[in-house]
Amino acid sequence: MKHLISVQDLRRVDTFHILDTALELDRVTNGGNKLLPTLRGRTVVNLFYEDSTRTRISFERAAKRLSADVIHFSAKGSSVSKGESLKDTALTLNAMGADMIVVRHSSPGAAHRLAHAGWLDASVLNAGDGRHEHPTQALGDAFTIRAHLRPGAMDFDGLTIGIVGDVLHSRVARSNIFLLASLGARVVVIGPPTLLPVGMAGWPCEVGYSLDARLPELDAIMMLRVQQERMNGTFFPSELEYSRSFGLNRARAQVLPEHAIVMHPGPMNRGIEITAEVADGPRSVITEQVANGLKVRMACMYLLIGGEASAA
Amino acid sequence: MKHLISVQDLRRVDTFHILDTALELDRVTNGGNKLLPTLRGRTVVNLFYEDSTRTRISFERAAKRLSADVIHFSAKGSSVSKGESLKDTALTLNAMGADMIVVRHSSPGAAHRLAHAGWLDASVLNAGDGRHEHPTQALGDAFTIRAHLRPGAMDFDGLTIGIVGDVLHSRVARSNIFLLASLGARVVVIGPPTLLPVGMAGWPCEVGYSLDARLPELDAIMMLRVQQERMNGTFFPSELEYSRSFGLNRARAQVLPEHAIVMHPGPMNRGIEITAEVADGPRSVITEQVANGLKVRMACMYLLIGGEASAA
Amino acid sequence: MKHLISVQDLRRVDTFHILDTALELDRVTNGGNKLLPTLRGRTVVNLFYEDSTRTRISFERAAKRLSADVIHFSAKGSSVSKGESLKDTALTLNAMGADMIVVRHSSPGAAHRLAHAGWLDASVLNAGDGRHEHPTQALGDAFTIRAHLRPGAMDFDGLTIGIVGDVLHSRVARSNIFLLASLGARVVVIGPPTLLPVGMAGWPCEVGYSLDARLPELDAIMMLRVQQERMNGTFFPSELEYSRSFGLNRARAQVLPEHAIVMHPGPMNRGIEITAEVADGPRSVITEQVANGLKVRMACMYLLIGGEASAA
Repeated sequence: MKHLISVQDLRRVDTFHILDTALELDRVTNGGNKLLPTLRGRTVVNLFYEDSTRTRISFERAAKRLSADVIHFSAKGSSVSKGESLKDTALTLNAMGADMIVVRHSSPGAAHRLAHAGWLDASVLNAGDGRHEHPTQALGDAFTIRAHLRPGAMDFDGLTIGIVGDVLHSRVARSNIFLLASLGARVVVIGPPTLLPVGMAGWPCEVGYSLDARLPELDAIMMLRVQQERMNGTFFPSELEYSRSFGLNRARAQVLPEHAIVMHPGPMNRGIEITAEVADGPRSVITEQVANGLKVRMACMYLLIGGEASAA
Repeated sequence: MKHLISVQDLRRVDTFHILDTALELDRVTNGGNKLLPTLRGRTVVNLFYEDSTRTRISFERAAKRLSADVIHFSAKGSSVSKGESLKDTALTLNAMGADMIVVRHSSPGAAHRLAHAGWLDASVLNAGDGRHEHPTQALGDAFTIRAHLRPGAMDFDGLTIGIVGDVLHSRVARSNIFLLASLGARVVVIGPPTLLPVGMAGWPCEVGYSLDARLPELDAIMMLRVQQERMNGTFFPSELEYSRSFGLNRARAQVLPEHAIVMHPGPMNRGIEITAEVADGPRSVITEQVANGLKVRMACMYLLIGGEASAA
Repeated sequence: MKHLISVQDLRRVDTFHILDTALELDRVTNGGNKLLPTLRGRTVVNLFYEDSTRTRISFERAAKRLSADVIHFSAKGSSVSKGESLKDTALTLNAMGADMIVVRHSSPGAAHRLAHAGWLDASVLNAGDGRHEHPTQALGDAFTIRAHLRPGAMDFDGLTIGIVGDVLHSRVARSNIFLLASLGARVVVIGPPTLLPVGMAGWPCEVGYSLDARLPELDAIMMLRVQQERMNGTFFPSELEYSRSFGLNRARAQVLPEHAIVMHPGPMNRGIEITAEVADGPRSVITEQVANGLKVRMACMYLLIGGEASAA
């Protein structure tokens, strides 16, 4: 594998290989306290057409733990804002010797185009392309689910995972649905009809409209961020009404099975899709998701461009 | 000590230990030309809710001279600007393995909260919190004063230091007043009544309203930056009138004792609180303050998170 | 040599020494895949008063391949935007121990002033000062021309190079004219009279107003970027008309000598000054220019501040 664009390109064995590599890298770096020389001399470019400090930092940390150089290329204030095409930006980065391009873009398909148009020798890692995919987020979430609910397992058979909220606009949801289903989990998508995609018939998930009805079946519940600009009538009447129907609070958390874990990709709107009490409660694995996202990003970089080094 | 939030947490012996460590680090790095491996594998996050290129660069340089990785997290364009709470940002950085958070924030107390709310394993270094404190600036200034006026001494007894200008809005002034007084210096604060804090009775300093009257007593004079938005009637009639009463020019500099030094935390408004002639003159130690700020920042990082390494 | 401000300071022997050093560094780093320790412990500051992601990244990469630390100082959001003078910024960076300042500024002469005002111990490398010069771009272009048309040669005698378009506002054009002429090339500047400087009589180039008339003589043709704000009447009636008269398309490219190369400093306006077909065609060396710009920047850093190391 040279690029990571979509979780749909990963066979189950690939995914577990990434998760096992993440575990191993975490072990040999002593939880990230030791640098590995694996990518010394390699250059990872963070090519961000959308701002995202969180995601940028996670990729930057991952690359630096493997001793790569990291270049940040923000589209703002660059030749891109003067109208440079994706192609010319790619050719420029290629000429500068980039070994990996981590790309975030508002257009679905931008990462795929960058990888496959013949402009680059570098590997491409999709860090979010429009509503399409955000594969490393889903891999980190799978790592977290596995650690808690199926340690060491090579399938997620028998697990039921709920994804709650604005699935329509969420690349995180999309990547999780396809990835978790490919591992054997049963995925239930829950939200108001206006925030669920039309034509989900072909997706490997069930659809529910009542959170309360589904809670008792869920081994893991993943709350999605409410985009405030989608409230107040555009997609939903109000935040208050949203949190009454789809927010996770203490009462609802108590209806979950005892072993269930509570997830959120961040950043959270505390008090809207999740209460502070639940977010900070004992079932919450939200900060672990951040740490695990970093681990799987290291693993992906290692596997995609650590080639000869990893063979040695 | 795990955090550095306020100079008021430092005993005299702590302060001189920091200053001595700064001297020693400067010596072993040959004035910064040699990197020390002390913080190799450690991550320092610059978490800046307010822009400050100068301060950011100084901390970045300090960390890199000790071989730490540095991550810049600017609140602009990040999840913070989408409303993420300080808590969630802290939890995220913690999960990513930050060893030290250098924080600048517009709210007094933000650094203290970050350090003591239980969100972090990392050390917190306050790089300016509202009008409250900016401890490393004061430590660098103490380093500069000691180098010129009391080389090698373990107290500032007998020194008189004047701080001139907008003390009301200045965290630099506040940190200097408390730090220098704790070392034994007599501190005299001089400025127009509208720019001096109400209720300074409890502060360890004297108050003067006439610069000319105080000049002959000062061993060091520290000119504060005039915030231009505070002129033109809000706090003071005009810049011209300000510089006539409180600006340091050649005539005034000649009234200072012969050994006196002239200081300014920067950035300067040349021609307002200080003339170019004095700023560039032989008594000025203003650029040394920049270099010494960097040295004490290295020392603070070394002492706060260099633990095992410094023992070895 | 301590600074690189203008190509007019370079004798022919200096230029070829830089180009040979660039070749050699490329060889010993295995095309940039291996880091050299030459500038370990040195600090290169990118001081950018104008945004330019491309140029910043190229200098950043060059410095990091030589193991220098790189600090990015953008004037935006810094003390500069609060009115700090170039002098005080320079004194600050000097006090922080900068070994090289790579400066981009909108004022012609800013780099020269920074280098020669006595503010700095650091070397200064001009990365573009207004309409004046951009020497490393011209050096990279000379490297590219030499590689294709005069491999290993120590002069460009007999070569004819056309520079086409908005020469008036282009520091790239200016640096190329003086550099290429100094190496022995015949330089022909071609464009509409409104976009050619007045008083070029003293410049070492010929002037042409018809692109079609000149094509058959050119060994290399360098297309300049059209600044869109200069179209629509200010300097030229319209983009369409511009590209009809001065754009390089397939028909025109076929009139060039068979061995001729097509150059562009980027970023391109595909379809205006150059068609996509020609930009991506077999004669185009545009992406090589990017790679070679990086190589000559490494060479300049090595020669300017690698002193003792390069002697060893």
